[in-house]
Amino acid sequence: MIPDKIIERIFSKDKRAVSRAISLIETGNSYSTELLKELHKRIGRAYRIGITGPPGAGKSTLTNQLTKFYRKQNKTVGIIAVDPTSPFTGGALLGDRVRMSDIGSDEGVFIRSMATRGSLGGLSKKTIDAADIIDAAGYDYIIFETVGVGQSELDVAKAADTTIVVLVPESGDSIQAMKAGLMEIADFFVLNKSDRPGSDSALSALKTILMFREHTEKSWLPNILKAVASENTGTREIAEEIAKHKNYLEANGFLKTKREEHYKVRIKEIVEHLMKNELWREHRAESLDASLAKVVEGETSPYEIAETLFNDFKSTIK
Amino acid sequence: MIPDKIIERIFSKDKRAVSRAISLIETGNSYSTELLKELHKRIGRAYRIGITGPPGAGKSTLTNQLTKFYRKQNKTVGIIAVDPTSPFTGGALLGDRVRMSDIGSDEGVFIRSMATRGSLGGLSKKTIDAADIIDAAGYDYIIFETVGVGQSELDVAKAADTTIVVLVPESGDSIQAMKAGLMEIADFFVLNKSDRPGSDSALSALKTILMFREHTEKSWLPNILKAVASENTGTREIAEEIAKHKNYLEANGFLKTKREEHYKVRIKEIVEHLMKNELWREHRAESLDASLAKVVEGETSPYEIAETLFNDFKSTIK
Repeated sequence: MIPDKIIERIFSKDKRAVSRAISLIETGNSYSTELLKELHKRIGRAYRIGITGPPGAGKSTLTNQLTKFYRKQNKTVGIIAVDPTSPFTGGALLGDRVRMSDIGSDEGVFIRSMATRGSLGGLSKKTIDAADIIDAAGYDYIIFETVGVGQSELDVAKAADTTIVVLVPESGDSIQAMKAGLMEIADFFVLNKSDRPGSDSALSALKTILMFREHTEKSWLPNILKAVASENTGTREIAEEIAKHKNYLEANGFLKTKREEHYKVRIKEIVEHLMKNELWREHRAESLDASLAKVVEGETSPYEIAETLFNDFKSTIK
Repeated sequence: MIPDKIIERIFSKDKRAVSRAISLIETGNSYSTELLKELHKRIGRAYRIGITGPPGAGKSTLTNQLTKFYRKQNKTVGIIAVDPTSPFTGGALLGDRVRMSDIGSDEGVFIRSMATRGSLGGLSKKTIDAADIIDAAGYDYIIFETVGVGQSELDVAKAADTTIVVLVPESGDSIQAMKAGLMEIADFFVLNKSDRPGSDSALSALKTILMFREHTEKSWLPNILKAVASENTGTREIAEEIAKHKNYLEANGFLKTKREEHYKVRIKEIVEHLMKNELWREHRAESLDASLAKVVEGETSPYEIAETLFNDFKSTIK
């Protein structure tokens, strides 16, 4: 059963209820699906912003400044920080503690870190589920802050309405971002720490790379904004660019299309997750393990074993 | 039907046949599974080396030097370069052309680039299939060269018997590698361009990070080797470290266990691929598309749609 009154408490923006609901999802609690079904009726009002980029680009600082900007406009903000926990130490990042003392005590701000550690592909699903809970609670903006280094982090950033890629003038940074697939997902770029040397050449390198992007007619052209987040320079311009992009999406009916696309990816992920659970039931997992020695010896091939397992799956599923 | 005599020609190390077989796999030709089943009987003799690291670390140069080293010992080498093709230009990397003029004309070297572009998760499957073909052709070593920026690239590097992570003294490089999950997969590290300033401090930073790694008794302790690949400094030591790791794996029965683990991952991937093909047949893909507007409107939730699709799948599969 869903914990008592948690739905009502979430709808009334009770932070502890929101936090508890996210924990239920993180641990894969059996009621979490029921909970999400109930909450879904009230979602879709929050505007979702993805902030991504290489490590050290200043994403946390920018998120904080943007949050404070929205708070001055009396808007509420939920932040989901996807934390690429070190596989060695398991510790949280320093930035998180700094953030908590800065905006964590504000009643209109909800902050949650979600660890990459051990999630193995389930990260984007859980992160977006968490955003739904915050959305249902009535926050105006949701910011996904995620380091752009892995597929699941990219998936999170892409799941936003507006995706911002933050870069710094360090040489080669934009090239690296391109290789990591960050360039494709940006609705606009922020060149942070733009008071540093090399800022102008980084800007022109970025412009050159963007020129190669194919554009369809009427499509949105990603802008490049300069900022120094640590000095709160450029925050207003970033907020304005977000608003501009939001207007663009809404005026053309693209917001709905974009959200439909996001739901499509997500539903596929949920179905495939259900299916894998069914597929890797104990007896098939054991049968796979038992076959491995023969495959290494060359007696049978991976493809033959795969077909046997798939046929067994088909014949036993009801 | 499998193209005429391709199997025999692969077994006799015919480069054109190897190349053609890899193309069949890349395009998803319907005979490719049959081909791989046939070839599997002759594989397992090649020793597989994964070379990965951040962009610009000098992986290609190191691969070339190592290849030349093995060729002097009269060993044959197959190279699979996983090329993170730019999503904008679609062009091949410059390094590839340099390489071809260097070792590409050597009869005992087979080189193949495989593009990341558009592979969407199928990359590691196709790359490892390609390695199997090269293995069946009788090459002594197979080198996977892949940039360590995405999950599928990491998957390729992990699929080797010995995985080498190449870093450079640039500040923060090792930290970034840690966040990207590179540290966990290294059997040893190469600190390339170690004649640059900052080399010693990078080395000690790396050692500190490694100290946090948990070690079980008898386990292999990853070494850190210095190199300047562009001057062919350190190549012999790298080859010796590979040999040392190979001996360690063989002496303890770990090579077999490691290859079994790799096959396990791979078979699971093949089965899940078969299942997804079945799952996303036209009528279900259409039914998913038709439901999206209702999900955006809040009339129904992603979880309800997912369950409906899954139930349909279960009831129609034979």
